[in-house]
Amino acid sequence: MERALELAKMGIGMVNPNPLVGAVIVKDGEIIGEGYHERYGEAHAERNAVKNATRSVEGSTIYVTLEPCAHYGKTPPCVDLIIEKKFKKVVIGMLDPNELVAGKSIEKLQQHGIEVLVGVKEEECRKMNEIFIKYITSKTPFVILKSGMSIDGKIATYSGESKWITSEESRMDSQNLRNRVHSIMVGVNTVIADDPELTCRINNEKILKRIIVDTTLRIPLDSKVIKNEDKNTIIVTTRLADISKKQMLIDLGIQIIEVQEKNNKVDLKELVKELGKEKIDSILIEGGGTLNFSALEEGVVDKIIFYIAPKILGGETSKSSIAGKGFSKINEAVKLVNTTYRKIGEDLVIEGYIEKNN
Amino acid sequence: MERALELAKMGIGMVNPNPLVGAVIVKDGEIIGEGYHERYGEAHAERNAVKNATRSVEGSTIYVTLEPCAHYGKTPPCVDLIIEKKFKKVVIGMLDPNELVAGKSIEKLQQHGIEVLVGVKEEECRKMNEIFIKYITSKTPFVILKSGMSIDGKIATYSGESKWITSEESRMDSQNLRNRVHSIMVGVNTVIADDPELTCRINNEKILKRIIVDTTLRIPLDSKVIKNEDKNTIIVTTRLADISKKQMLIDLGIQIIEVQEKNNKVDLKELVKELGKEKIDSILIEGGGTLNFSALEEGVVDKIIFYIAPKILGGETSKSSIAGKGFSKINEAVKLVNTTYRKIGEDLVIEGYIEKNN
Repeated sequence: MERALELAKMGIGMVNPNPLVGAVIVKDGEIIGEGYHERYGEAHAERNAVKNATRSVEGSTIYVTLEPCAHYGKTPPCVDLIIEKKFKKVVIGMLDPNELVAGKSIEKLQQHGIEVLVGVKEEECRKMNEIFIKYITSKTPFVILKSGMSIDGKIATYSGESKWITSEESRMDSQNLRNRVHSIMVGVNTVIADDPELTCRINNEKILKRIIVDTTLRIPLDSKVIKNEDKNTIIVTTRLADISKKQMLIDLGIQIIEVQEKNNKVDLKELVKELGKEKIDSILIEGGGTLNFSALEEGVVDKIIFYIAPKILGGETSKSSIAGKGFSKINEAVKLVNTTYRKIGEDLVIEGYIEKNN
Repeated sequence: MERALELAKMGIGMVNPNPLVGAVIVKDGEIIGEGYHERYGEAHAERNAVKNATRSVEGSTIYVTLEPCAHYGKTPPCVDLIIEKKFKKVVIGMLDPNELVAGKSIEKLQQHGIEVLVGVKEEECRKMNEIFIKYITSKTPFVILKSGMSIDGKIATYSGESKWITSEESRMDSQNLRNRVHSIMVGVNTVIADDPELTCRINNEKILKRIIVDTTLRIPLDSKVIKNEDKNTIIVTTRLADISKKQMLIDLGIQIIEVQEKNNKVDLKELVKELGKEKIDSILIEGGGTLNFSALEEGVVDKIIFYIAPKILGGETSKSSIAGKGFSKINEAVKLVNTTYRKIGEDLVIEGYIEKNN
């Protein structure tokens, strides 16, 4: 299963909104086939493992990180393949997170006399597919808020300098994050201030949707995210935007999503639902302090990843990683659970999940 | 030496500005005596170990964390005691940090035919006495900046609420810090806002000097730090203060230190020199953001200890742990080196040393 997890992760960046899945076929104590879900819409891990097998898989055991599918999607059901190929045993990391179908494949396998073991390295399998699990069960994207800051929580000096607070290693690590997710979200202020490309620099084939939150369509028409030929930019706006500007952007091939406004800003709760409908399973927010706070306040964030440099910037007016109005009371603060820490270069990376109160 | 380090730490809180020292006497592979420097002005570790020995120390080995003294201070030289008692061998953690006398005792011991080994667990010994080493070599106190904050660097919400951001475990841990140091420093704004006691709640015998930085003597006369009967409060002010208020405070038994002002504030560089003259070997700054930034900007801080709670407070106007003007450029930022991380309760503790450029 360790190896199946490794294989699964080779699909990172290419399978969204599908799950990452790896499969390993073992016969007589030897690995005779390996496969993973390589790309959205293409063959599943089990099928690839069977295809890659070096000899007959009859009577062998298949280790797979996720319960094999029992339904016809873009490919035929893997369960039928396993039965047809006369596997003896199936070892499964985790059940299908979709409660309506969870366990269905297992029943079918058992009915055909195949031995099934479930829950091997389940925690790792679940963590690897936290995006898929959230999306498939809620139809809304898994949202990660990422920020790089000084140890005192600052993302720019009072004079506005922000390049670079964190180390090169941290910035490279955050490219891995971009590869992991389906979309990246920033506020229009970030586009105006930095004119970023918002691409994934470590994977040329990656389709990374760029989501620009722009309540009144202030985005400059010559921004890199608009000029980019891949047409992967979505601008989110409200009825407060100028109609002719909106038409200009549409003419430039930009997708516009209009959502309700809330306190004169884009209603982020509604937005994530809309993006879920667009089959976007995950969003990496790389906002400035205002967007970051709004996303936390609206409760749309699932996970935070902070890169913390061993530097102190100070300053009452320097830019905070999480700005906006802020929470008034300490017991209203966002709480993190399952927090982990790791060092990367000279920086510290803190990852944590938002405690949900409901 | 492991045991000698443990013993040495039993003196924490009681020996400043002396070093923490532990000694263990071993004979025939058995510990026959243990001692540590228990209290400022009283017997040194070596003498206590000899006194506590269960049989004759002649021919035995003494392990001591710091080079034994060769001079007459408040007690006679330990080197003479070691020679007189006919020890066979002396194992030393670290040399005397005072370069003028470092190694002198070793020479004398060797001249008397005693075997000497130096540098055993030296790093731990040096770290344990980082306060003593700085003070004895520079005559200025070792300054620790401590702050408890949210993960986004905030010490209070925009509405001013600050109790409590960090966990009880963290707050208890910071009482250990208070026990470790000779003095605690806050700005007058903290006294006005919180009226803290600034005592060490885990050691009744501890003499903890309270240093209030108050450029213009705005301190309320009924503050707890003034009413406390132990008279351990020092108020630091400048010539900008009102003379009659100053006299009132003196009449109340408060020690006043007047230093130069710099940009209409207490000149902290001058202040630490003055406090060094008062035999204060260490300062724990528990300031608000303004004092914290000034201390960092003035370069008087040696070490930072941040207690970081897994909470996000946000807010453009909420209070930052390090406020003031801030550094204008990222390459002017204070850099931390030898940074370490540990978990305490649900919080993270980051400790680091300020990189000195000169």
